[in-house]
Amino acid sequence: MLSSLEIAQAATLRPITDIAADAGIEPDELEQYGRFKGKVDLSLIDRLSSRPDAKLINVTAITPTPAGEGKTTTSVSLTQGLGALGHKPVLALREASLGPVFGVKGGAAGGGYAQVVPMEDLNLHFTGDLHAITAANNLLSAMIDAHLLHGNKLGIDPITISWRRCMDMNDRSLRDIVTGLGGKVNGYPRQTGFDITAGSEIMALVAVARDLADLRKRLGAITVGQTYEGEPVTAEQLQAAGSMTVLLKEAIKPNLVQTLEGQPAFIHCGPFANIAHGNNSLVADRVALKLGDYVITESGFASDMGMEKFFDITCRVGDLRPSAVVLVATVKALKHHGGNIDGGMAEIEAGAANMARHIGIINGFGLQAVVGVNKFPTDTPEELELVRRLAVEHGAYAAEVNTAFEHGGEGAIALSEAVVAAADEPNGFTFAYPADAPIEEKIRSIVQKVYGGDDVQLLPAAKEKAAAFEKAGLGELPICMAKTHLSLSHDPTLKNAPTGFTVTVRDLRPYTGAGWIVALCGDMQTMPGLGAKPAAFAIDVDEHGNTVGLF
Amino acid sequence: MLSSLEIAQAATLRPITDIAADAGIEPDELEQYGRFKGKVDLSLIDRLSSRPDAKLINVTAITPTPAGEGKTTTSVSLTQGLGALGHKPVLALREASLGPVFGVKGGAAGGGYAQVVPMEDLNLHFTGDLHAITAANNLLSAMIDAHLLHGNKLGIDPITISWRRCMDMNDRSLRDIVTGLGGKVNGYPRQTGFDITAGSEIMALVAVARDLADLRKRLGAITVGQTYEGEPVTAEQLQAAGSMTVLLKEAIKPNLVQTLEGQPAFIHCGPFANIAHGNNSLVADRVALKLGDYVITESGFASDMGMEKFFDITCRVGDLRPSAVVLVATVKALKHHGGNIDGGMAEIEAGAANMARHIGIINGFGLQAVVGVNKFPTDTPEELELVRRLAVEHGAYAAEVNTAFEHGGEGAIALSEAVVAAADEPNGFTFAYPADAPIEEKIRSIVQKVYGGDDVQLLPAAKEKAAAFEKAGLGELPICMAKTHLSLSHDPTLKNAPTGFTVTVRDLRPYTGAGWIVALCGDMQTMPGLGAKPAAFAIDVDEHGNTVGLF
Repeated sequence: MLSSLEIAQAATLRPITDIAADAGIEPDELEQYGRFKGKVDLSLIDRLSSRPDAKLINVTAITPTPAGEGKTTTSVSLTQGLGALGHKPVLALREASLGPVFGVKGGAAGGGYAQVVPMEDLNLHFTGDLHAITAANNLLSAMIDAHLLHGNKLGIDPITISWRRCMDMNDRSLRDIVTGLGGKVNGYPRQTGFDITAGSEIMALVAVARDLADLRKRLGAITVGQTYEGEPVTAEQLQAAGSMTVLLKEAIKPNLVQTLEGQPAFIHCGPFANIAHGNNSLVADRVALKLGDYVITESGFASDMGMEKFFDITCRVGDLRPSAVVLVATVKALKHHGGNIDGGMAEIEAGAANMARHIGIINGFGLQAVVGVNKFPTDTPEELELVRRLAVEHGAYAAEVNTAFEHGGEGAIALSEAVVAAADEPNGFTFAYPADAPIEEKIRSIVQKVYGGDDVQLLPAAKEKAAAFEKAGLGELPICMAKTHLSLSHDPTLKNAPTGFTVTVRDLRPYTGAGWIVALCGDMQTMPGLGAKPAAFAIDVDEHGNTVGLF
Repeated sequence: MLSSLEIAQAATLRPITDIAADAGIEPDELEQYGRFKGKVDLSLIDRLSSRPDAKLINVTAITPTPAGEGKTTTSVSLTQGLGALGHKPVLALREASLGPVFGVKGGAAGGGYAQVVPMEDLNLHFTGDLHAITAANNLLSAMIDAHLLHGNKLGIDPITISWRRCMDMNDRSLRDIVTGLGGKVNGYPRQTGFDITAGSEIMALVAVARDLADLRKRLGAITVGQTYEGEPVTAEQLQAAGSMTVLLKEAIKPNLVQTLEGQPAFIHCGPFANIAHGNNSLVADRVALKLGDYVITESGFASDMGMEKFFDITCRVGDLRPSAVVLVATVKALKHHGGNIDGGMAEIEAGAANMARHIGIINGFGLQAVVGVNKFPTDTPEELELVRRLAVEHGAYAAEVNTAFEHGGEGAIALSEAVVAAADEPNGFTFAYPADAPIEEKIRSIVQKVYGGDDVQLLPAAKEKAAAFEKAGLGELPICMAKTHLSLSHDPTLKNAPTGFTVTVRDLRPYTGAGWIVALCGDMQTMPGLGAKPAAFAIDVDEHGNTVGLF
């Protein structure tokens, strides 16, 4: 079989103008970026406001192995499968970050015959959204330090500045730095650092803004630090929010591409569901809901990670109502949770406890779970059937093996049919916590109802901040948990279905622009690093100028 | 009169596909970025290889005031004027950097009725070239630090690492930083810094690469530092050059836009003619030379800055032969050099010495100088006529007042006719120095023949490096002077026509990827800062979502 890059490079793509026209997008609503990419104007949502929304299907996964379980491949193939069945599906995925592309994880375009294309563009600069977010973030940083240098009229206490620079790169050397060395001409020295762009508040904020005016307002509401009197200092006070908005004017528009089988796919915002909220943009979902009959929207990592945040943050903020959830499972991941990734049927049986927990989490949100067993070449038919059977036994509405990597949409027909049926069932969608509960109570609800833990412990710094935030009127914001994706708990070494644990929250960050409070569990890094053999070593151009080594 | 932004926003643009078709670009050679921007494939140069090249006109200026003299406005209007005369002009300009856009200088799209459009796009992210350059630069940085952490197999001596990170922002706090703090997990601490992207070697390298293969080779040849044994360490040895090339695959293609009067304009690479070479890309010039009958190419700052580097670097590397030079002068700048920017006729007479020197520099390269006197609203007819007359008296081939800011191409008809005549004259184009002269000798030639100084003094560090570079086989590379643009000398306070000075070179940097040696004069900063009232304060969106405050 060809590599995913070779399949993508060999594909015959339809002009994006045709994809858009078939989806019901007016020519004036599409701004082309090359022949096969476009941005869609948000005015479309108003134009089609009277049209009923599509059914919204979330795609999530069981607790993944470090290599991932093929969630994007499943999302793409489900879209292709629904298309093959005669429906009008629209896909909504998250954008790739250059960090993982040149690091270890690879791209974010699916794989095999279930990809979104043009794959190379998607995994590189695409339409520049992440670069625009980086620029807006770092303009604010430069304006903060310039403000300190030019007299500090706002009286910002430099030691309270929580706003960090960002870069779309895996660069651990930038996590903890001192800037402004070299004397007066370079400003005041300050200890600070860079986060990866995907984990920045600006990325989060673009992902939940409803339109340009809302974006402008949210940018102004960003808290960068405090005055010597303890009052918050915002981007608005620094006169930075207007320029930041101008830098993000295009980035707020969702990007349209296509699946290998020609269905429309929006790719917009939101990677990194561990340190960030990890979902594609609200505007992409809203546009997609107006265009299709099924919207397939993917959340990052497992149901305790991206899916929880999709429901409790995006759906709450955006007033979205999901219809069903697809839970991706693999033979390999079940073996991994069962104690031996190279094991057999016994390990699958044992590791099914993880899958059961995720089905329970989905049901806990009042939704049906359809398990998609993503087939890998090394899986035996018996192993695949065992996973499928265990899923149903553990409460899945249905479970189907998905061979889309090899067969495209045809390989996802059974899964697609099951999803259609599940979405037709009545559901009692609900949140994990009410917005008006105290901050600690909201975190406790997530830990107990979603992670299956005993309790939460806020360290003194976090406890203090929770009280301060509530006093400052931020008590009703939802929570964005920053937690490892490798375990249902906060401890990446606890595989399968851990119980009896208490989650420690070491710090809280007020994302007053994005509109939520980040709870940092354990020692989550907000800037990854490159390994000893990064993917970058193998990426190159060949003698014909074609890209090689990208996956 | 409307503001430049209002004029640009009110303009009716032609689809870029029409501009391209009229210019003779095949549909397959144009990649659209929205309706009004496109990238042109370099294969066009081969397709049209048998067509004779257009006449190449360089646009430069006298020593500018900090506000600039309207060189881009003149370049655009000359293109518009030649178009009005029935010629087939093609414009080649440099890309804007976000640093100055949000800092003080404003945009880079011309002004009034002599602009390239879409102006907002040009001054913001445009087609993402600077972001791609930033990413490639910083990927290499991350790979250097990761290499040190993961065993340092190449034996790089960390203290010799000259490769710095970059950012397209005015952020002085990043000039001098310490990275890698916080313990083992964040790598080894190191003192380093950021340059502005426009001044980076990658920007320089993209600007002179002939094609993708040449780009790949140049990226591999970048020197990042030395081993403990004193051997150079390259990007190729770090296995970074392939990935960097993939990041720059689109950035190497020149960007096509249009003037307000519909002539084709390439905008590609190369701002910052003080710290960098400050010219648009060689590929943009090469493509333009195949498409038109006149190519108007603008160099940064004055003739001692961008123009010298255009001739001695770009024309030498790219085998280009210019036909004539337009020298932009203003009443205000002559008064400034004459001792009082608010002065009168006497100051103009005095300040004409600066203009005379620039005419002499142009003649020294064997070319005719046509002076374009760029009219400002405050200039009187007598003042303008005086500048015009003095230009001719001091050796200009011709001199014409240019009212294009108010009148578009019609205001540049006389200037255009003079340029056509000057370009028809035979010329004896020559370089300021032969490539095979010793490094110090080449710098001395520039100082004496171009700047009009007495001599050059290499400080010990620079002298040592000159010897080392010659020993390492780098002796035949051209020189890129990093010098203030505010004086013909290296001292920004010496206005008008200074003599009797010796230029001090404090350091040399080997740009083995770009293919030249940078000579740092005085204390040139490679990262600007934001002032107390940056342009960013005024930039915003209005209630209709339109950008305001961009200029």
